[in-house]
Amino acid sequence: MAGDGHLGEFELIRRYFTRSDGRPAAGVTVAGIGDDAAVLRIPAGCDLVAAVDTIVEGRHFPRGSEPRSIGHRALAVNLSDIAAMGATPAWATLALTLPAADPDWLEGFSAGLFELARRHGVDLVGGDTTAGPLTVSVQVLGVVPSGEALRRGGTRAGDLIAVTGTLGDAGAGLEIALSPRRPEDRQALALAQRFLYPTPRVEFGRAARRIARAAMDVSDGMAGDLAKFAAAGGLAAHVDVERLPLSAALLGFAPLERALDHALAGGDDYELLVAVGPAEAARLAAAAEESATPLTVIGEFRAGRGVHWTRGGHPFTPARGGFDHFAGPSTQFTD
Amino acid sequence: MAGDGHLGEFELIRRYFTRSDGRPAAGVTVAGIGDDAAVLRIPAGCDLVAAVDTIVEGRHFPRGSEPRSIGHRALAVNLSDIAAMGATPAWATLALTLPAADPDWLEGFSAGLFELARRHGVDLVGGDTTAGPLTVSVQVLGVVPSGEALRRGGTRAGDLIAVTGTLGDAGAGLEIALSPRRPEDRQALALAQRFLYPTPRVEFGRAARRIARAAMDVSDGMAGDLAKFAAAGGLAAHVDVERLPLSAALLGFAPLERALDHALAGGDDYELLVAVGPAEAARLAAAAEESATPLTVIGEFRAGRGVHWTRGGHPFTPARGGFDHFAGPSTQFTD
Repeated sequence: MAGDGHLGEFELIRRYFTRSDGRPAAGVTVAGIGDDAAVLRIPAGCDLVAAVDTIVEGRHFPRGSEPRSIGHRALAVNLSDIAAMGATPAWATLALTLPAADPDWLEGFSAGLFELARRHGVDLVGGDTTAGPLTVSVQVLGVVPSGEALRRGGTRAGDLIAVTGTLGDAGAGLEIALSPRRPEDRQALALAQRFLYPTPRVEFGRAARRIARAAMDVSDGMAGDLAKFAAAGGLAAHVDVERLPLSAALLGFAPLERALDHALAGGDDYELLVAVGPAEAARLAAAAEESATPLTVIGEFRAGRGVHWTRGGHPFTPARGGFDHFAGPSTQFTD
Repeated sequence: MAGDGHLGEFELIRRYFTRSDGRPAAGVTVAGIGDDAAVLRIPAGCDLVAAVDTIVEGRHFPRGSEPRSIGHRALAVNLSDIAAMGATPAWATLALTLPAADPDWLEGFSAGLFELARRHGVDLVGGDTTAGPLTVSVQVLGVVPSGEALRRGGTRAGDLIAVTGTLGDAGAGLEIALSPRRPEDRQALALAQRFLYPTPRVEFGRAARRIARAAMDVSDGMAGDLAKFAAAGGLAAHVDVERLPLSAALLGFAPLERALDHALAGGDDYELLVAVGPAEAARLAAAAEESATPLTVIGEFRAGRGVHWTRGGHPFTPARGGFDHFAGPSTQFTD
């Protein structure tokens, strides 16, 4: 630190991770970075919602990914979890392990992180940087009126199953980002962006809170995540793959079978899966429109267990399961 | 996962990190592991205190460390931060990156983590496991009556400076743990234990909240941490190294100069540094006694800046600075 151009941990935190414009959308930051711990005040009558998710180089994103995307994604994957609870994000903490304190990298990473944080009124209140293999662990704290968090369970037979946005874009986008000769056309770039800069459905999740019966985010691929959603409510999900929302970009990039595979098992979509009583479906559609979030009904819950996939009415079996970080990951890169 | 003995992420979390006996000492866990995020209810009139700290293999602990110690330390370093705020820990989340899902390792790690969690009434409410180089990031959430968190600043000229426990044991303990021929005598083992199983001063921190003026934890070595403590209050710390509390085990193991070096720059002590008005010193000593925590007055704050070290009244300069994760770490092992 003594004038040798080497960036120490404290200087690093001060320079890249201390912003004075952090004003949480919900709650008050009494003390942020600079003490042993942050002191936070949540509004009266609210519960706290806490999500934590880690992204590791070579596993959740390719080596050499642009740092701005890494900063964005590390926060986005957690905002998606907060959105799935119908909560309002307020604070984040960051545990950053990185091989070297490279100023260019840190500039990009923090820009990506803070850009998304600002958009959602999130204040970074605590951090920890360590030298080591690139690993980014973010925790987001949000608030929700007491007892109103949107849980995974609580679905009932007859509930409609709906999903936001389109599925499979990120899976295809990752394939594009990994290909040695990156396609340069607009559609391919749009898909790559969907992997690099996912959009957490925060506004919709909050709007859905009092309308939907249950929600979870789709992060490990629809096939595996829908199975978890069904299990949480002790019901059977009946979904026809022809109803899955696929983007024009995805259908332009990949043959239908490959597009469906991305949609079912690609992972990294960060869309919301919601269950809604049929009588509330119109209200939910209106809430989606208000937050400019595409929403598609893809099936329904019935008595039973598991996921019953059909395709045009005929039984169908997805080719791959969901993403599991230890058992056959579908997005394991190099190591 | 299909009978091949391979442990999937969800099974891993279920088996090792879901305990039904988690009842937080403060607050209510509305929803823990198993949803997109945890839902937590903090008592009315309380602020939330959030700490995050990461430990990385080969940097914060030697490669091949016993897993039980790693689990203990990952939580302990965060409990120490919560203690330094005078708060009561309530919940923890875990982001665990590990090379392979080895059942023996996980058994030891989770035992170390949960043993300490139970002792302090901490409920593990969220987790994330990923394959990658061993990195353990824990966040602890605690509660404190609104406005009463014990901050680093707020010291006044004339305040006494006190520290809990003894200093330098962990630094010597690490040296012992790293030595190829580990000494087997009782004192050496006791020092190694101090590194492997630090004692966060949670009870004392809470008791000190209404008595002390300010506090911080000593994790990166007294020399560097005291400088930060002084800077936070805009004062000068005057401390004579002969007043630093050194254990008999440390003095038996190392020559005095080496013992002092461990005490000043060794790091990993996880003791609490507190500032107290002279009129309150007796009450603080009584609080320390009540929580069976050794407490030693080592100096005082005066107008000025920086740390003024003396030794037997003569100016003294510590040989090394504190631990900095990017600028010349004192506990960097191998890589």
